[in-house]
Amino acid sequence: MEEIKIEQIIDVVREAATLMDRSGGFEIRNKSVLEDLVTSSDVAIQHFLTEKLGTLLPSSGFLCEEEDLQDLNHRYIWIIDPIDGTANYARGNENCCISVGLVKDKELFMGVVYSPWRGELYTAVRGEGAFCNGKPIHVSDRPFENGLLYTAMSTYHKEWSRYCSDVIFDLYNQSNDVRRTGSAAIELCLLASGYADLYFEIRIMPWDYAAASLILKEAGGAACSFDGDSPSLFRPSMYIAANTRQNCDRILQTVRRHIRQLPY
Amino acid sequence: MEEIKIEQIIDVVREAATLMDRSGGFEIRNKSVLEDLVTSSDVAIQHFLTEKLGTLLPSSGFLCEEEDLQDLNHRYIWIIDPIDGTANYARGNENCCISVGLVKDKELFMGVVYSPWRGELYTAVRGEGAFCNGKPIHVSDRPFENGLLYTAMSTYHKEWSRYCSDVIFDLYNQSNDVRRTGSAAIELCLLASGYADLYFEIRIMPWDYAAASLILKEAGGAACSFDGDSPSLFRPSMYIAANTRQNCDRILQTVRRHIRQLPY
Repeated sequence: MEEIKIEQIIDVVREAATLMDRSGGFEIRNKSVLEDLVTSSDVAIQHFLTEKLGTLLPSSGFLCEEEDLQDLNHRYIWIIDPIDGTANYARGNENCCISVGLVKDKELFMGVVYSPWRGELYTAVRGEGAFCNGKPIHVSDRPFENGLLYTAMSTYHKEWSRYCSDVIFDLYNQSNDVRRTGSAAIELCLLASGYADLYFEIRIMPWDYAAASLILKEAGGAACSFDGDSPSLFRPSMYIAANTRQNCDRILQTVRRHIRQLPY
Repeated sequence: MEEIKIEQIIDVVREAATLMDRSGGFEIRNKSVLEDLVTSSDVAIQHFLTEKLGTLLPSSGFLCEEEDLQDLNHRYIWIIDPIDGTANYARGNENCCISVGLVKDKELFMGVVYSPWRGELYTAVRGEGAFCNGKPIHVSDRPFENGLLYTAMSTYHKEWSRYCSDVIFDLYNQSNDVRRTGSAAIELCLLASGYADLYFEIRIMPWDYAAASLILKEAGGAACSFDGDSPSLFRPSMYIAANTRQNCDRILQTVRRHIRQLPY
């Protein structure tokens, strides 16, 4: 099989982004709870991406946010969030993006995160570094005490918010401050770029973090899940990340003081 | 005395913004605690603004963030934060802005919030509406349950973080979700624009919110402090705001369940 070039993925993602509409010309529907939205743009972009990317790699599989699309029995698998940060998208807020990760032989191989309203295109190919708008990016060297933490409560599961609140309170008191954009993919890319330094979310989905995980890793960052291993590419995971392995481990230790067992 | 036009303030603020430097060519110094920074850009911008704005209204006074500049015995008083969101500025993050409010006879008269890296200029003149980049803005009509909350822990006073954490946990469980940019002025302008709906911070300073307060009010929003009155223009305040008076009151009621007496 011919290998694919990252520029081909970028072209498809840029074209898909023309389907995003800041003037609000889309329909909004609730999925599981009030916080969990899908818009007609999410669906249209996913259809566009699966068709075009499937043509680039004809025997590839898909794991996508919308419509329960899972087809994993392939050497190449696309992990796609057509719009990460849909709640922001629905409000016209800039913190939303298209996220496309490509897995090859069970490992991340390429990642593209594109936020047209932020004007930021993040890309990575395994072993070749990470880039924003074509310029190399790297995590910060800040110590934990001066670290900015991107985090979230358990947005679609308010019944777990006590856990999150306790972890965030503890991390806040060890670090500099807290931020939250509402898009995990963008936040992990901002960590990769050195704007922030620490990350914790109790449960996110592979399409939220697949592409950004490779970008973060190629930028020198570290990530793990509740068990200390790398977050799974195919199941929901706790996601912990930091500019260094040491800071990542310190977040995990803090989390384990408050969460003895995952609630899912 | 001749009255001033908002366009004159905008021109001065835009010129001041050319002193902001995203490439990091400035010095950083800590003020009270690790979280409380000042850069050489803050100082340079404040000097520029006080000189130029003082020339526009020769007998006006000043209340500014840096260098303890307070000179309030005047009919016109400029309330200035040369850079709101200095911690973001120091990292090259876009969520920072210049904030200039003009008080006339003890009431807000004009406000300009300019974030060059976000590409957003927010303006208001008392009684004449609020604008972003020249287009009218208005708060949302979302109910509390679907509201996005901009909030913060007590960034420069971690000893009060228990209060903040408890309030945020309670508000989160009544609303949709939480966001935080790290700039109060930008967040209040985003509330004024209808992107978010609710706001709580335990203690911020007049220069953080003076200009944005007028922008929010002219956009139809409501604000109050811990005592239910409007936040003071001349002293630090708890700042509560929302898209409606009813939602603002509901935040205040929630706050009072957790904070019986202000810790300052």
